[in-house]
Amino acid sequence: MGTQATPPMSSTRLLRSYVSGGWHTAADEGAPLRDAVTGEEVARISSAGIDMGAALEHGRRVGGPALRELTFHQRAALLKALASYLREHRDELYALSARTGATRGDSKFDVDGGIGVLFSYASKGRRELPNDTVYLDGPVEPLGKGGTFVGRHVCTPLRGVAVQINAFNFPVWGPLEKFAPAFLAGVPSLVKPASQTAYLTEKLVELMLGSELLPEGTLQLVCGSAGDLLDHVTGQDLVSFTGSAATAQRLRAHPAIVRGAVRFNAEADSLNCSILGPDATPGTAEFDLYVKQLVTEMTVKAGQKCTAIRRAFVPAELLDDVQQAVCERLERVSVGDPSNPEVRMGALASLEQREEVRRSLKALRDAGRIVFGDPEHVDVVGADPERGAFLSPVLLRADDPDRAEPHEVEAFGPVSTLLPYTSVEQVVELAARGQGSLVGSVVTGDTEFARDVVLGAAPWHGRLLVLDADDAQESTGHGSPLPMLVHGGPGRAGGGEEMGGIRGVLHHMQRTAVQGSPEVLTAVGNAWVPGAPRSEGVHPFRKSLAELRIGDSVVAGPRTVTDADVAHFAEFTGDTFYAHTDEAAAEANPLFGGIVAHGYLVVSFAAGLFVSPEPGPVLANYGLENLRFLTPVKPGDALTVTLTCKQITPRENADYGEVRWDTDVTNADGESVAKYDVLTLVAKENER
Amino acid sequence: MGTQATPPMSSTRLLRSYVSGGWHTAADEGAPLRDAVTGEEVARISSAGIDMGAALEHGRRVGGPALRELTFHQRAALLKALASYLREHRDELYALSARTGATRGDSKFDVDGGIGVLFSYASKGRRELPNDTVYLDGPVEPLGKGGTFVGRHVCTPLRGVAVQINAFNFPVWGPLEKFAPAFLAGVPSLVKPASQTAYLTEKLVELMLGSELLPEGTLQLVCGSAGDLLDHVTGQDLVSFTGSAATAQRLRAHPAIVRGAVRFNAEADSLNCSILGPDATPGTAEFDLYVKQLVTEMTVKAGQKCTAIRRAFVPAELLDDVQQAVCERLERVSVGDPSNPEVRMGALASLEQREEVRRSLKALRDAGRIVFGDPEHVDVVGADPERGAFLSPVLLRADDPDRAEPHEVEAFGPVSTLLPYTSVEQVVELAARGQGSLVGSVVTGDTEFARDVVLGAAPWHGRLLVLDADDAQESTGHGSPLPMLVHGGPGRAGGGEEMGGIRGVLHHMQRTAVQGSPEVLTAVGNAWVPGAPRSEGVHPFRKSLAELRIGDSVVAGPRTVTDADVAHFAEFTGDTFYAHTDEAAAEANPLFGGIVAHGYLVVSFAAGLFVSPEPGPVLANYGLENLRFLTPVKPGDALTVTLTCKQITPRENADYGEVRWDTDVTNADGESVAKYDVLTLVAKENER
Repeated sequence: MGTQATPPMSSTRLLRSYVSGGWHTAADEGAPLRDAVTGEEVARISSAGIDMGAALEHGRRVGGPALRELTFHQRAALLKALASYLREHRDELYALSARTGATRGDSKFDVDGGIGVLFSYASKGRRELPNDTVYLDGPVEPLGKGGTFVGRHVCTPLRGVAVQINAFNFPVWGPLEKFAPAFLAGVPSLVKPASQTAYLTEKLVELMLGSELLPEGTLQLVCGSAGDLLDHVTGQDLVSFTGSAATAQRLRAHPAIVRGAVRFNAEADSLNCSILGPDATPGTAEFDLYVKQLVTEMTVKAGQKCTAIRRAFVPAELLDDVQQAVCERLERVSVGDPSNPEVRMGALASLEQREEVRRSLKALRDAGRIVFGDPEHVDVVGADPERGAFLSPVLLRADDPDRAEPHEVEAFGPVSTLLPYTSVEQVVELAARGQGSLVGSVVTGDTEFARDVVLGAAPWHGRLLVLDADDAQESTGHGSPLPMLVHGGPGRAGGGEEMGGIRGVLHHMQRTAVQGSPEVLTAVGNAWVPGAPRSEGVHPFRKSLAELRIGDSVVAGPRTVTDADVAHFAEFTGDTFYAHTDEAAAEANPLFGGIVAHGYLVVSFAAGLFVSPEPGPVLANYGLENLRFLTPVKPGDALTVTLTCKQITPRENADYGEVRWDTDVTNADGESVAKYDVLTLVAKENER
Repeated sequence: MGTQATPPMSSTRLLRSYVSGGWHTAADEGAPLRDAVTGEEVARISSAGIDMGAALEHGRRVGGPALRELTFHQRAALLKALASYLREHRDELYALSARTGATRGDSKFDVDGGIGVLFSYASKGRRELPNDTVYLDGPVEPLGKGGTFVGRHVCTPLRGVAVQINAFNFPVWGPLEKFAPAFLAGVPSLVKPASQTAYLTEKLVELMLGSELLPEGTLQLVCGSAGDLLDHVTGQDLVSFTGSAATAQRLRAHPAIVRGAVRFNAEADSLNCSILGPDATPGTAEFDLYVKQLVTEMTVKAGQKCTAIRRAFVPAELLDDVQQAVCERLERVSVGDPSNPEVRMGALASLEQREEVRRSLKALRDAGRIVFGDPEHVDVVGADPERGAFLSPVLLRADDPDRAEPHEVEAFGPVSTLLPYTSVEQVVELAARGQGSLVGSVVTGDTEFARDVVLGAAPWHGRLLVLDADDAQESTGHGSPLPMLVHGGPGRAGGGEEMGGIRGVLHHMQRTAVQGSPEVLTAVGNAWVPGAPRSEGVHPFRKSLAELRIGDSVVAGPRTVTDADVAHFAEFTGDTFYAHTDEAAAEANPLFGGIVAHGYLVVSFAAGLFVSPEPGPVLANYGLENLRFLTPVKPGDALTVTLTCKQITPRENADYGEVRWDTDVTNADGESVAKYDVLTLVAKENER
């Protein structure tokens, strides 16, 4: 037995789990987790003794109710505070991250990226969700002609737990990217990291709980095997999985998931492609961008990214040039101890992982030849090449793009294959042969080519990046999922969708169509529905948020619009459009048949009617929404306006909030001539 | 052997399938389908000899490309024409419908309801989708501070086939409800009806194809066993299933569906409930509404609806009253030959179905007792009670609502169970014990009670109806899914979502996040993205739709806003809000710090700047969207406006269309003071 290959035994500690309100240490010895660089044991892992059913029930009974007491804005504020807390403590995460084989850059990608997701969801939650516990999805739908029966969709949090099964490659970003939308939705999380790098996720959860920002039960952690966890999920729970396509398939068919029609979201690593445009010949900015991006994607996280480029499609006539340029860049990539600042690429996560990549490379070599790198050898800087999971970047070239292997075999490491193509139709077809990918990129300065590839390849992709000289400086790159965009692809990529801004929040909520009278729908949604009762009395602009109620309204008018008003408005504003100024021409207009008042005149007069001029709680009108001119206003028409408090959104961190007012301007016949929402800022208290 | 129970042999024809561009008749004898009323053989059924893989490939290669050449509006126009065609031919469907056991009312529910879905989708498609082939989902997301890198989500049709497996109870509505959103999305359908009533669906498809409105390959039909159909589905196909929870589970775990992460949508019949409010005592309108609705839901389609009420929750103190009132109404329900106008309830779909219901009733009787009806006997009007699948309505009463059976055992026929409750918390919990339902209803005049039940029960429901005296006249009832609302529930109900207006269309499309420069995103989405190039020249208001291009723009101004302008506007419009008129008060405003111009003044002046007054292709400004006042305008500020053609939507059936203009009003410092979209109607041609 060679002592070199066997790392020294050490008595490292067992990773802990946090379940049912306390930290749990397994009773058994657990299995060792090894430093990716040195092979030393970092910790041991076991979930023995955890009552998985009880943990889920704890989330449902303790975490869920606590979260549901908070509004979206309150949850968003907690996410923001949590993000700030983690940012302060990120050095603790970086330190452990290096042991996973990650360079400083890799660690920033993982740690800072994850914290960025929290900040992004905090901001989206405040700006795009109501300060309430129910989300209104889409407009009110009339269901009868009389207006007494209407429908609208509401989203309420599922009453279960979001079980989040993460991959080894992003031990910080992975959990945070799943936790943020669940938390914002009002659904507690149970995090199950991949064992290989679970010590980093354990540290993350320790920090998150240590922040004392999260209500008990909203975050649990299981280190080690999931055991019978999934046997206990119900139709109110969710399972989100990131990892291999094979495991995704196994989980998707799990009896409890099938039985409960449990929402199952999978992100599986896929055979993503990057396409060089025919315009991007050597010497163009796009040629260089393509080469640089390909090398970056091969080497960041040692290519262990489910979004990495596995298939590099290049116009046949540019294949030699691209190969040469990529090889030249790869020559400059130093591999070794990731804590060494000169090192560009660290180790794979484990020796097992390296063996797996070598096996896949064997299959890929049936279709192509290696043009850079040696799977069996690499020069290593500052580390022991036998104990650490080091691997050379490997570039293959497959001159026949129709061979199956490059489209089917994934080597989850620093490995890509160059493939030639000859037409846009062909490259779209070749891209589709990945059977569904998380991401693809097109590098071209030709907008037409970009459009054709994007619209052709879109059905097989969750995300498509078009990189060119215009956006290169700001581009976040092929490999980076962003919280405001969906992450996930169809088919082989798992058919899932994560993040995507508020879409990821709604994934954790049940959409329910509610049918009833306008009054009932107003009460359910906490937003006034046309047809519901109005309450007149004190002018609602005199009421602070403390006094204002949904349905408070003012009816003002009538004011007659005269010929002189229209003529004067035209002259004053300069809006001398013929329909306002030229009787003969206006008569010929197929929609008006005569002089009409300006729409802007109508809304200006309406404001003159509904305004309450003296200083008071209403601070400003900051906008209008959904303005529609429904009936032409002719000189002589008398306008009445009805303004009704529709929705109130107090701010958590200011002494005012937003109030949306339903506005209906009618003529003497009671017809609506204009409808819109007026948006105002209103103080919380009348005394300032 | 009793001759009575054995229907006469007859040589009926084999139902045909329509696959791969032609009608297919099986080579074997097939299995008999029997009239639900007389037991006579109606037809025989078999799918023997159909190459299922070839049929799917035909849809993908012929139907999909043909559909994708049409815009959403063109597809919507075809749906509308198809709906009109079917309405003209509906008598042919009614005639066959009676043989399924359906009364005239039941047939209208099925046939007219299905045609109504087509009309609704035609209308929604025209109003809510662009006249284009790509759907833009959500706003443009800035991805960098400089504005050179942005993202947006586009939806493109999946490139496969929507496999639609329907239940026996709605042989017309079922297929149409699945076909309409798929067609509108650009995805071809393959319809697989349940055998029992497939002869009616065959007729429907024959009519649809006979209309010659549908491009070849967009509609296929498989009568008989699905054979190995599902083995051939890929990640680009979809499977939508309506039927039993058990079958839904089997299909969900099908290896090809799991392997391809195939979008699988299930609507499974569920244990839906209806809740009477404590306020609805005998003598109230709501008491009567509750009783009437319960009897309706028990007897329409002989209770064979996946949305029917299985659990009737009633305040304990009202249980006897409700029982008595329901029984009285049930007494008046005549059962028999559905073609007899005096008959209120027809037969179940088959004798097998009746046996199934009788078996379920045995289980339900462990928890409750029958208070109306006899499962083994019913008086039948105008038909042979032995040969037809007749069954009495059966009302049970379970005094212990905690017993498992009423919440778990479904008798798919004219069967409901009365259950008492004592508090709103309890009834919400009891409702949830159905483990996920398609629909629930609350009958109450108490808005607070309605709100508590709706928000409490929503996570377990796809739809909730609140019925009261206000909406009763227009209410479409507990059992009716509507095309503008989602249909489907979590958990036991299958976890699916159908219809819901455009949501059902998007279910058939892949959402892809596209990242790139504003110019590239403009080209991909056919809608101008801020930051993309603009084209100045001829004033764009002089251009008809034939000449106008995305990005055409006009820059106009500057115009200085004077003190006098603000004072005059206040006086003229009556909008004398202090921030425009009272220097001292305006200074105290925390947002302005001095006199500001009215927002309405700003947009009015902007219109005065960008307008092109003479008659021309621009016919009207019909609205504004997303107006935000971003920077206060002070007297002395000079305003410039930039108007840019953002999106063009020509109408299919008019000589004009909608044009949306991006509008940006800036001050002398180049800051945006207001941003909004101006909506106009523009003629297709300049000569009118």
